[in-house]
Amino acid sequence: MDASSERALSRLKEIDSEIHVLSGASALLGWDQETYMPRGGLANRGEQSALLEGLAHDRLASAETAALLAALGCADAEPSGDPSLPRPERLYLRAFHRAWARAAKLPGEFVRERAKAVAHSQAAWAEAREKNDFPSFEPHFQAMIAFARREAAYLGFERDPYSGLLNQYEPGMTEAPVAAVFEELKAGLASLLSRIGSRPQIDDSFLHRHCPEERQEAFSRRIAGILGLDPGRSRLDRSAHPFTTTIGPGDVRITTRYLEDYFASSISSTIHETGHALYEQGLPEAWFSTMAGDAASMAVHESQSRFWENVVGRSLAFWKARLPELRECVGPALDGIGPEEFYRAMNKVEPGLIRVDADEVTYSLHIVLRFELESALVSGALEPSGVPSAWKAAMERILGIVPADDAMGCLQDIHWSLGLVGYFPSYALGNLYAAQFAERMDADLGGIEAIIERGEQARLLDWLRRKVHSKGSLHTPSEIVADATGAPLSPKPFLEYLERKYAGIYGFSTVSPPYSS
Amino acid sequence: MDASSERALSRLKEIDSEIHVLSGASALLGWDQETYMPRGGLANRGEQSALLEGLAHDRLASAETAALLAALGCADAEPSGDPSLPRPERLYLRAFHRAWARAAKLPGEFVRERAKAVAHSQAAWAEAREKNDFPSFEPHFQAMIAFARREAAYLGFERDPYSGLLNQYEPGMTEAPVAAVFEELKAGLASLLSRIGSRPQIDDSFLHRHCPEERQEAFSRRIAGILGLDPGRSRLDRSAHPFTTTIGPGDVRITTRYLEDYFASSISSTIHETGHALYEQGLPEAWFSTMAGDAASMAVHESQSRFWENVVGRSLAFWKARLPELRECVGPALDGIGPEEFYRAMNKVEPGLIRVDADEVTYSLHIVLRFELESALVSGALEPSGVPSAWKAAMERILGIVPADDAMGCLQDIHWSLGLVGYFPSYALGNLYAAQFAERMDADLGGIEAIIERGEQARLLDWLRRKVHSKGSLHTPSEIVADATGAPLSPKPFLEYLERKYAGIYGFSTVSPPYSS
Repeated sequence: MDASSERALSRLKEIDSEIHVLSGASALLGWDQETYMPRGGLANRGEQSALLEGLAHDRLASAETAALLAALGCADAEPSGDPSLPRPERLYLRAFHRAWARAAKLPGEFVRERAKAVAHSQAAWAEAREKNDFPSFEPHFQAMIAFARREAAYLGFERDPYSGLLNQYEPGMTEAPVAAVFEELKAGLASLLSRIGSRPQIDDSFLHRHCPEERQEAFSRRIAGILGLDPGRSRLDRSAHPFTTTIGPGDVRITTRYLEDYFASSISSTIHETGHALYEQGLPEAWFSTMAGDAASMAVHESQSRFWENVVGRSLAFWKARLPELRECVGPALDGIGPEEFYRAMNKVEPGLIRVDADEVTYSLHIVLRFELESALVSGALEPSGVPSAWKAAMERILGIVPADDAMGCLQDIHWSLGLVGYFPSYALGNLYAAQFAERMDADLGGIEAIIERGEQARLLDWLRRKVHSKGSLHTPSEIVADATGAPLSPKPFLEYLERKYAGIYGFSTVSPPYSS
Repeated sequence: MDASSERALSRLKEIDSEIHVLSGASALLGWDQETYMPRGGLANRGEQSALLEGLAHDRLASAETAALLAALGCADAEPSGDPSLPRPERLYLRAFHRAWARAAKLPGEFVRERAKAVAHSQAAWAEAREKNDFPSFEPHFQAMIAFARREAAYLGFERDPYSGLLNQYEPGMTEAPVAAVFEELKAGLASLLSRIGSRPQIDDSFLHRHCPEERQEAFSRRIAGILGLDPGRSRLDRSAHPFTTTIGPGDVRITTRYLEDYFASSISSTIHETGHALYEQGLPEAWFSTMAGDAASMAVHESQSRFWENVVGRSLAFWKARLPELRECVGPALDGIGPEEFYRAMNKVEPGLIRVDADEVTYSLHIVLRFELESALVSGALEPSGVPSAWKAAMERILGIVPADDAMGCLQDIHWSLGLVGYFPSYALGNLYAAQFAERMDADLGGIEAIIERGEQARLLDWLRRKVHSKGSLHTPSEIVADATGAPLSPKPFLEYLERKYAGIYGFSTVSPPYSS
C-alpha cells in the first residue's frame, strides 16, 4: 500500500468513524424515546433524530468520500479495489462502497423529508392502532409507500423495485429467490401445521399464572448474564416493544416487557434480544465504528436472536438445566411444574393473529403474508387503501383465521409506519439461517443438546463468534452462510428441525421430507 | 422588514434551531453518561460528545452565518441591527451575535482538540480525586489552564484574560466589579460568621437518622411536583452529582442523590435542581430552540435554583406548610420533630471543607476562594502545581479550616477538570441575584413568607416567570436584574437577608449594616 493510498484509507476510516459516532448518538435518542423520555419530549425528538440522520447521510454521500473511494480504486459499481491493498482492507472497502453506493444515490433532501415524515407517520400509526382507525393512518401509509417506490427508483431498481428495498436489509438478496424459498417454506409449514392440528392440544395455562414484574425482571437479568451478556457493557430496560440498540463499542442495550399474566413472554423476548446483543458485542473489534464492523444484515441479526430464543431457549435440554433458576426467581407460578411440562407449554403451536406472539411453526407464515402484501404494494398491484381487506383475505388463506379489526390485523406492526418496506423477510430468513447454523454447529461440536443441558452454552457462543460474529460486514450474508455451513440458503434444515421437534412434542411420526413434493 | 431581511432572518433561525437540536442531543449524551450508561460506554462517549459539539460550533461559526448576520446589519462588534426590524427580532439578533462573536473567534480545531482533552481530563480528575493523587491530574490541569489562556487570547482579552472567560458565563461581566462585590461580600460574611460562632451551636443530629432511598425519592418527586415541575415534561433520576439538563422543549431533566444517613441533602438538592428546571421550562416559548430562548446566564440560572433551595426551601414558612408531607414520606426519621426544630437544623451554620455541603453563610466564601485562585491561575500569578498549597492557605485565611488532603481540597470540584474556568463566580452572583429578586418580590406581592406558608408558591413562580424566565436571552443579566428590581447588582440585599435570618436562628441582635464599614 503506497503512502497516498494509506492517507486516503485513513481519511476514509475517519469519516466512517464520524458516521458511526452520529449513528450512536441517534441510537441513544431512539433508545431514550422508548424507555425514559417524558411525553413532552416527543415533539422535538423527531427533529433531533432527523438532523443526526441527515448529517450522517451527508458525510457518507459527500464529494470527499467519492473522491477517496476513486483514489482507492473503488469507483466502479462492483469495486475491485486497489490490488496493492491487503485483503482485509479490500473487504472493508467493499463494505463501505456498498453503503456509499446506496447513500450517494439518495438526494439529501429526500432523506430529510422522509425522516420528518416518518416521525409523524409513526405517531399517527400508534394512535390509529390504539383507536382501530385505519383511515386516519392511510395518508401516512400512502406517503411511506410512495417514499419506498421513489427510493427504489433512485437506487436504479425501477424494474425490480422490491429487490432494491430488500437489498438494503439483506445485501445481495433479490425478490425472486426469496419468493421461491418462501413458497417451499409455506408448503412445509402448512403440512406440519395440519398434522399438529390433528393432535390433542397442549395445556399451557400455568404460563398465565400471575407473576409480578420484579420477579420476571430478576430472571431476565439472570438469564441474560448466563447467556453471556456482560452488565458492564450492556443494559436491560423496559419498553413497550422489546428491542436491542448499540450506542457504541461497549454499550449495547436491550429492552423487554413484562406481562404479569404471561411470564413466558418476557423470557422469550429477553433471550431473543440477548441474542441480538451478543452478536453486536461479537462484531470484529479491529473494525469497530466502521462499515466492516457492522452486522452483516438484518437476517443474520435475526438468525442470532432466533437461535438463542428458539433453538436454545425453547429446547428441553435448556429447561432441564435452567428450570431451577427460573423457579427461584418466579416462585409460585411454577409450583408443580417440571422441565418436560414447561418445555411442552413453551412450544404450544396455535395459529394466532399477532406475529410477535406466534410460535415457531406459525411465525414464518406471518412473514410470508407480509412479504406477499408488501411486494404487491411496491409493484403497484395493491394500494394502501386495499390493505385492510387484503390482509384479512391473506390471513384466512395462510393461517386459517381472520382478525375482527385492523388493530389486530394490518395495524399490528410498526414497520410500515416507519417506512421499513422490504424488512419483513429478514425475520423468516433469520429462522432459516439459524437452523442452518444449528445443524452445522451440532455436527461440529458433536451434539448441542448435551452441551446445553450441561450449561456449557458458552461453547455455542464461541462457535457463533468464530463463524458469524467476527465476520462483521467483511463478508456478505451468503458468504457467511456458505463459509459456516458449506451450503447456500435453504429452508430444509429449518423444516427438518421443526419436524423432529414437533413430532416429539405432539406425538406424530415424521414424514420425511414432506416439503420436497 | 423587507423580503430579503425576512429570508436572511428565517435562514438564520433555521441554523440556530439546528445548533439547538445538536445541543439537545449532546445534552442527552451527557445525561445518559451520568445516569444509565454502562461502564463500557465511557470510551466512546467522549468522542460522541466532542463530535456533536464540533458540529454545533461549525454551524455557528460558518461563513454562511457570518454573511447572514452582515445582511441583517449585525456585522459590528456592538451590532445595531437593521433598524427596520421589529424590536424582538433586534434583541434576538443581539443574543445570536453574542454567541456568534465568541464562536467565530475560536478555531474549529481548537474546539475539537479541547473537547477531546476534556474527556481525558475529566476521567483523570475522577481517578485522582478517588486516590487523593493530585500529581496524576496535574498535567491535565495544566492543559486545561493552557486552553483557558489560549481561549482568552482568541477572544481578544489578552490584557484582561479572566474577564474573557467570565464573560461567556455572565455576558457583560468583567473581573473588576466581581472582585469589588466579592470583597464586600467576604467582609460581610466574615462578620456574620464570627457572630454566629459566638452563639451555642444547633443540634441537627436527627437529620442523620437513617432514611431509605425510596422514602427520600418519594418526597423528592412530591416536592418537585408541588413546586410546579410537570412530570409529563421532565424526569427525576439519580446520579452521583445532581444536575439539570434540557434535552428539548418539553423535556427538562433533573437528577439528585440520596444519602441514607443524611436525608436533608436530597431535599435541598432536589429543590435546587427543580429551581433550575422551572427556569428552563419558563423560557420564552416563541423563542424556543434559538439563542434568545436560552437562559440569560449561569448566574441568573443559579439565582433561580438558590431562590427555591434557600429563600423558599430553607424558610420556616415552607416547613410549617410542608412538614406533614415530608413526615408522610420519610416516616420515622422525623419522629418528635416540629417545623421550628426542622427549620433550625436545616440552617445550621458551620465552616466545612466541601462547597456543595456548605450552608448559606459559608457557601459564597467557598466561591470567593475559587475566584481568587482561578484569577491568579489565568493571569499566570499562580501555576497549577502550586494550587494544592495555595488552596490550603486560602481555606485557612477565608474559612479558618484546612483540608487534610487534596481530595477534600483542590480536587473536590469537577469544574476545572472540564476546562470550566470563570464559571465559579456564577454561584455567588446567583445568591446575590436571588436575594435581590426576593426583596423586590416581597414588596410586589406584599410579603412572601405568608404566601409560602399558605402553600401559594405558584405566585412566586408566576413573578419569576414574568420578570426573569420569560426574558430568555432577549435581555442581558444586568438588564433583567435592573428591570426586575430597579437596582444594579449589589451584595446588600443578600447580606441583609442573611443578617435577619440568622439573627433569628442563632439569637443575636443585628448590626445594621455591618458590611458597609
